[in-house]
Amino acid sequence: MTTPPGKPDLKVSPLAKPFPALPAVDGVAIGVGRAGFYKHQRMDLLIMRFAEGTTAAGVFTRHAVGSAPVDWCRAALAATGGRARALVVNAGCANAFTGAAGAGAVNAVMEAVSSELGCATEDVLMASTGVIGVVLPYGRILNVLQDVLIAVKEDAWAAAAAAMMTTDTFAKGAVEEAVLGGRVVKIVGVCKGSGMIAPDMATMLAFLATDAALAPEVLQTLLAAGVKDTMNAVTVDGDRSTNDTCLLFATGRAGNPRVTEADDPDLADFRRALGAVLLNLAQLLVRDGEGASKFVKVMVTGAQSPASARKIARTICESPLVKTAIAGEDANWGRIVMAVGRADEPVDRERLSIRFGDLWAAKDGRPAGDYSEAAMSAYMKRAELEIAVDVGVGAGEAVMWTCDLTHGYIAINGDYRS
Amino acid sequence: MTTPPGKPDLKVSPLAKPFPALPAVDGVAIGVGRAGFYKHQRMDLLIMRFAEGTTAAGVFTRHAVGSAPVDWCRAALAATGGRARALVVNAGCANAFTGAAGAGAVNAVMEAVSSELGCATEDVLMASTGVIGVVLPYGRILNVLQDVLIAVKEDAWAAAAAAMMTTDTFAKGAVEEAVLGGRVVKIVGVCKGSGMIAPDMATMLAFLATDAALAPEVLQTLLAAGVKDTMNAVTVDGDRSTNDTCLLFATGRAGNPRVTEADDPDLADFRRALGAVLLNLAQLLVRDGEGASKFVKVMVTGAQSPASARKIARTICESPLVKTAIAGEDANWGRIVMAVGRADEPVDRERLSIRFGDLWAAKDGRPAGDYSEAAMSAYMKRAELEIAVDVGVGAGEAVMWTCDLTHGYIAINGDYRS
Repeated sequence: MTTPPGKPDLKVSPLAKPFPALPAVDGVAIGVGRAGFYKHQRMDLLIMRFAEGTTAAGVFTRHAVGSAPVDWCRAALAATGGRARALVVNAGCANAFTGAAGAGAVNAVMEAVSSELGCATEDVLMASTGVIGVVLPYGRILNVLQDVLIAVKEDAWAAAAAAMMTTDTFAKGAVEEAVLGGRVVKIVGVCKGSGMIAPDMATMLAFLATDAALAPEVLQTLLAAGVKDTMNAVTVDGDRSTNDTCLLFATGRAGNPRVTEADDPDLADFRRALGAVLLNLAQLLVRDGEGASKFVKVMVTGAQSPASARKIARTICESPLVKTAIAGEDANWGRIVMAVGRADEPVDRERLSIRFGDLWAAKDGRPAGDYSEAAMSAYMKRAELEIAVDVGVGAGEAVMWTCDLTHGYIAINGDYRS
Repeated sequence: MTTPPGKPDLKVSPLAKPFPALPAVDGVAIGVGRAGFYKHQRMDLLIMRFAEGTTAAGVFTRHAVGSAPVDWCRAALAATGGRARALVVNAGCANAFTGAAGAGAVNAVMEAVSSELGCATEDVLMASTGVIGVVLPYGRILNVLQDVLIAVKEDAWAAAAAAMMTTDTFAKGAVEEAVLGGRVVKIVGVCKGSGMIAPDMATMLAFLATDAALAPEVLQTLLAAGVKDTMNAVTVDGDRSTNDTCLLFATGRAGNPRVTEADDPDLADFRRALGAVLLNLAQLLVRDGEGASKFVKVMVTGAQSPASARKIARTICESPLVKTAIAGEDANWGRIVMAVGRADEPVDRERLSIRFGDLWAAKDGRPAGDYSEAAMSAYMKRAELEIAVDVGVGAGEAVMWTCDLTHGYIAINGDYRS
């Protein structure tokens, strides 16, 4: 079971990837249940248990109105210095913009779970996704809590990914191995979208677990660095969520000597593997962007700085006119020019060049001499596109991934709550 | 004749307003013609002639890749110190991102027109709208130039507005009178969208003419101040055009003593009237936003500064999730919370309040006690909506206007060039 979507009438994205075979991670147990946040029959509650000694790190939305569970996670990780024994995730209610009542609901769940597991309440973390402005009806979680905890399994990753879906149309997971301290360690991750990026209701949630032994400060440093060019480099619609949460847990059961310094050279392979899992998950979010029919990689070079390149890439990726032209398979590269110019970053318009795949649309500030509308139109029919832009002022580069803007997005979001 | 749209198959916006009765402005003559930039039968060329002594002022796109006609206007106004004898406008080709060839095309048109009229080339201004990256085939304009100039009329405002439409579905005009120097003066304006705001192809162009006598520096000051809370306070999709142009011409035929100081207290009524024409035109752009079915006023109060309020209002107005919820008549006010929070401006989430019309959705950081889903749903069915947001940190205020994001937008923009 990998795909019981949040809205049962949604068609699976044409860009979907099959859910991979994900191994158990020693020290992690997974339970799912139906709390009943949705009218239709589906799992909507996920609980992950972690072995004693598990370290934890998190990165969260920078949204000014963070949700109650995000507030809880930030405070709990600060209080414990980066420890975790359990994670509770629900779909169907974001518990954001809910004031003291929302915080109380989180607290009630944390107390019940910690009491069941015999740990401190701060050792339990929480993430929620769903409608904003509704206090979590936490009684529904308490009702099924014991049943879920009894039925945990070690490798139920597909069920975990499915239980947190909202407008997602397929379950998302990834795995990598790395060598650390002479041992092979695993990094497994699951996530949900359908955009961080950011359908406010379809919050980006990503949870990763490794059996490596890593001090919490090391874990936090690796995670914060890892999301920069992965989770933070994808955008579906530019709408950042109140609930975005990415957590990384390390059970320490692989037997490697515990790493205590983030600049330990032995971490190189782990860092690579973590980056690969995060990038894989991030790209799966784009592949399941609401209504997506095209997967688009945007590369900007020649910018004044990497930050400037990123801003230009983001403006291209979030331009409704660029996204609708891509949806229409229209090689309307003038819209790329428009988006580049409105990013308010330094651009040399006499050197601006634009390429779709291997086909030059514009070179040095004017339409390319060998431009072929027929070749370009054929290219635009592909499901996966690459757009490269050089703005001709410096050496700053950035890559971002996005999807197109289709009728599907309007249909999904015009009527989300019904 | 007011409505031969750029795409003949577009339905007239449900938010359309009838074209008003616009009077002749002494010293202005209007001609339209068919240069042939479109395959279907329609006027696509507008020439306005102005009496000797006419002063002119302009505000233009801040886009980094300004078009050749925008470059020309900026340079010509600087060279003459704010004079104009004619304006040439074409639809169907933006002549942007066209390098030296694009500049040469503008020059050829300016030379032909100035030679016909016996004035300096810099006394002629130009504005273009249409596809980016195509050099203006200016020969088509030269072919019909004499015929258009022979057939000018004084009050052909409706024809002028129609000749510059692209994806616009109705022609747009406005008029006000003001008392200045003891005389009644007129301000007449026409514009096209369908967004500034800013379908790159549907460039915002607005042209206003008055018979008042105003020194060019005064005209420029009044126009620059006037667009701030009008043209610059509307947004359809956040995509700023390469070609946005707003020009104001003053023929000086009304007989008022020429105003030479922008702070002359006698200008108060003229300033009010100019603001009214600009606001009226700006709101017509929103009413004809591509695919628009709702006209939405967004008011932000309690921000740290007016600029902060404007940024929050803009983020709400340009959020795809807010716009699609409005299109779906879904009172999903949680998306307003999301948009407010992602504007990266100071917000007190414990004091955040949101109102739709007279109905409170949220008060002081939580769902409103008297919230009624039924009442809110009924409100959302209206064609014109007001959304008020107080962010609880200061006294900064801003108002913006926008439209919703519908299937129509996708349909229009997915296949613009065909």
